[in-house]
Amino acid sequence: MADDARLTPQSEDFSAWYNEIVRMAELADHSPVRGCMVIRPYAYRIWELMQADLDARFKRTGHENAYFPLFLPRSALEKEAEHVEGFAPETAVVTHGGGKELEEPLVVRPTSEAIIWPIVSNWIQSYRDLPVLLNQWANVVRWELRTRPFLRTTEFLWQEGHTAHATAGEAQEETRRMVGVYRGFMEEAMAMPVVTGEKTASERFAGAERTFCLEALMKDNRALQAGTSHFLGQNFARAFDVQYQTEEGEHDYVYNTSWGVSTRLIGALIMTHGDDEGLVLPPSIAPHQVVIVPIWKNDDQRSLVLEVAHRVRSSLSRDLRVHVDERDTVNPGAKFYEWERKGVPLRVEIGPRDVSKQQVVVVRRHTPEGKERKRTLGEAEAFAVIPRILDEIQRDLWEAALERREANSVRGVADYEAFRERAEEEGGFQYAGWCGSAECEARVKEETGATIRALPDEEFLSSEPPERCLACGEPAEHEALWARAY
Amino acid sequence: MADDARLTPQSEDFSAWYNEIVRMAELADHSPVRGCMVIRPYAYRIWELMQADLDARFKRTGHENAYFPLFLPRSALEKEAEHVEGFAPETAVVTHGGGKELEEPLVVRPTSEAIIWPIVSNWIQSYRDLPVLLNQWANVVRWELRTRPFLRTTEFLWQEGHTAHATAGEAQEETRRMVGVYRGFMEEAMAMPVVTGEKTASERFAGAERTFCLEALMKDNRALQAGTSHFLGQNFARAFDVQYQTEEGEHDYVYNTSWGVSTRLIGALIMTHGDDEGLVLPPSIAPHQVVIVPIWKNDDQRSLVLEVAHRVRSSLSRDLRVHVDERDTVNPGAKFYEWERKGVPLRVEIGPRDVSKQQVVVVRRHTPEGKERKRTLGEAEAFAVIPRILDEIQRDLWEAALERREANSVRGVADYEAFRERAEEEGGFQYAGWCGSAECEARVKEETGATIRALPDEEFLSSEPPERCLACGEPAEHEALWARAY
Repeated sequence: MADDARLTPQSEDFSAWYNEIVRMAELADHSPVRGCMVIRPYAYRIWELMQADLDARFKRTGHENAYFPLFLPRSALEKEAEHVEGFAPETAVVTHGGGKELEEPLVVRPTSEAIIWPIVSNWIQSYRDLPVLLNQWANVVRWELRTRPFLRTTEFLWQEGHTAHATAGEAQEETRRMVGVYRGFMEEAMAMPVVTGEKTASERFAGAERTFCLEALMKDNRALQAGTSHFLGQNFARAFDVQYQTEEGEHDYVYNTSWGVSTRLIGALIMTHGDDEGLVLPPSIAPHQVVIVPIWKNDDQRSLVLEVAHRVRSSLSRDLRVHVDERDTVNPGAKFYEWERKGVPLRVEIGPRDVSKQQVVVVRRHTPEGKERKRTLGEAEAFAVIPRILDEIQRDLWEAALERREANSVRGVADYEAFRERAEEEGGFQYAGWCGSAECEARVKEETGATIRALPDEEFLSSEPPERCLACGEPAEHEALWARAY
Repeated sequence: MADDARLTPQSEDFSAWYNEIVRMAELADHSPVRGCMVIRPYAYRIWELMQADLDARFKRTGHENAYFPLFLPRSALEKEAEHVEGFAPETAVVTHGGGKELEEPLVVRPTSEAIIWPIVSNWIQSYRDLPVLLNQWANVVRWELRTRPFLRTTEFLWQEGHTAHATAGEAQEETRRMVGVYRGFMEEAMAMPVVTGEKTASERFAGAERTFCLEALMKDNRALQAGTSHFLGQNFARAFDVQYQTEEGEHDYVYNTSWGVSTRLIGALIMTHGDDEGLVLPPSIAPHQVVIVPIWKNDDQRSLVLEVAHRVRSSLSRDLRVHVDERDTVNPGAKFYEWERKGVPLRVEIGPRDVSKQQVVVVRRHTPEGKERKRTLGEAEAFAVIPRILDEIQRDLWEAALERREANSVRGVADYEAFRERAEEEGGFQYAGWCGSAECEARVKEETGATIRALPDEEFLSSEPPERCLACGEPAEHEALWARAY
């Protein structure tokens, strides 16, 4: 594929657009192993910036990182009945090690509850050792039949939080706290609005008593589950005998939580802000927040503009990630095009005329209607103005994404046929009543492809609660958020 | 094991001391899977600080991080003849995925050359795409028969650099550059002296043309290989068809390097600085550089000293990692003891009398002879003085380790019996002549347990080169560094 190939427009074929952007912005590559993805340096840098931001939030809320083994004995996975039922069918199994068949096969972790709690139970004696607040950055493997880069891959990178508490109340509080931490990250760093809420029983994590989630709406109007946080009750504590001595000297099982987000967030980022020119990155997690493109026609001009380019970079790079594109083998137009495709928030152009006028030209990647895409700044003021422009871009991306989400959310949906038609054609979020029965939930999924993404938290509920279940017409127990989803 | 249990002295049983420190300083734990280690939060934090320091050095030398799959098809591992011979016997093999037997078994990566180059070859067309400078932070698996926490485990964490270059010269330069990067990190951050040099053919990485290494001397006088850097020539490029178009339009294979350090460095750190009281951490990679222990006898005193403790922390924590140990359930003496065992470089004690005198007491974990372990500082000067004390501790640890290494290195060893006796009893580094034959190398290993750790770089060679081979008495081709090793 030539470098100057156009992307398929989103409106024409969103899925083709996604695959092209993944390839052309050099985000991921296929591997010889089915379903396993290569994360290329540009996307991995985005992941590092996401990790750094999330990790600081985890540490601020008292969590420590640790590392647990990649393998778990198959018998450990089988101890929690629902857990094994959910995960066993999609595991990769090691049967041979060091040239010999193993006595007991090892499972490559699909998630780590069943490896962590048998070990950490030894670290917990009394209530004084609680809470245990752990997090792990790791790779996990789930044998997926249909895979897509970042969105669903056999191996993926994630973080998994695992905590133990003395009371159900504290564990529930932790479960909700982490939804808040994720939401803060998604809104502030990713500029991605999310609806928070609880999953229905059919969509719960295998082994959890309650699963909370964050749901985002992609540009093709399909929903994406961006993160989950589970209240595990005492299910795993009983399965792995994680007990502690209470202040009163009794013995009780701990209450657990787990919560995670993955490299799937890179997919979410692509589909939240990307456009027909390519990727669009929020400044807070862009590998290069500013790319300076020097423009010259001969060697004299070259050294002149490069001198200024380096000076501007120096003045900015204390606080910002700035790259000077000095390549001789690519012309400025091609550089503009490449960095637009890679979603760099702000481009700075410096040519000989700019040097003589002591100015630089700045061009935004994302510009809302009514704002100027291109501005000329005095070189001396660039230092102060560019960080402000980046802050503005971050806010503008958030507002554009929120506006789009709102424009594609409908409330008070009562007519099932209209619901079905919208689910199948326009897509988007639909808020509608639900009687609470698994039958109605399954029927709607079967007939429309839409699932209950969440029973939204109060702030997301409609001012007038729905009276009837969308499917059966019986009184509504809940207002549910429905959508077709990734 | 009770918290106040004494460590076995190093002089009595170094191996027992090591295992106890790993457990009592809460560094690692065993797992239900043989040979797989749990890295507990305190040790994982050390690893994070090591990672951050190393990663910044890799980025400054132009490397980018990426992520490649955990699995590789067995056929890929088999493409480079020496490579497969070296690694196949110690691999873990996945034969089942998603409930079905796989058509081709997958190998869990023992190292990633055989997965990276078939993929990255697609990213390289011409000389303009070179060099490719990649690094990956990942877990790898090697089926080890005898394992020890951090030093040798079936799964371990590491970074593996992988680069491709147009010429052999550039690749060799890269190989050497990374030895320098590692050396800078080990000396400056870990305060651990290393001898750099080249491995003999028998100790080379499977598939490499040349292997360079960094060798440290532990406190029990055994050597530890702390890092390696390999010049792979065109071996992997030929095996995986990694070609590029030269500036002259010809096609040629690239030249590769790979280089890595692992969580083994945590073991090196323990055995370089630890003493009979426990762990001793250099300030630059200590999770807590300063622990403040407030001392009180009643609630009035408690709020008084805590107020000062928090004020001191605030004044320090802009630049330092400072922890206030506020636990009510542990008395100050036990806190002193615990933080000493965990190797915290500097303790600050604040009691009611200190508060009234506006002073704090600082106590060093490591104090060379002739220096004061304990000092009283005015509260107002603590802000400026404590960072200087930490710098001094870092230097003192370096000097102590260097002095110990030098005191345990002997040069000009010509008498084989004396060599054998020293290798078996005192241990340490021995510099001696070697004729260059694999037979002599093997014989010395067989008879004394000592191996050639490196053919040292010039700066480490003796002023008078040895004339004869230690083993056969023929003229010496090299001066070799011999030792028994981990």
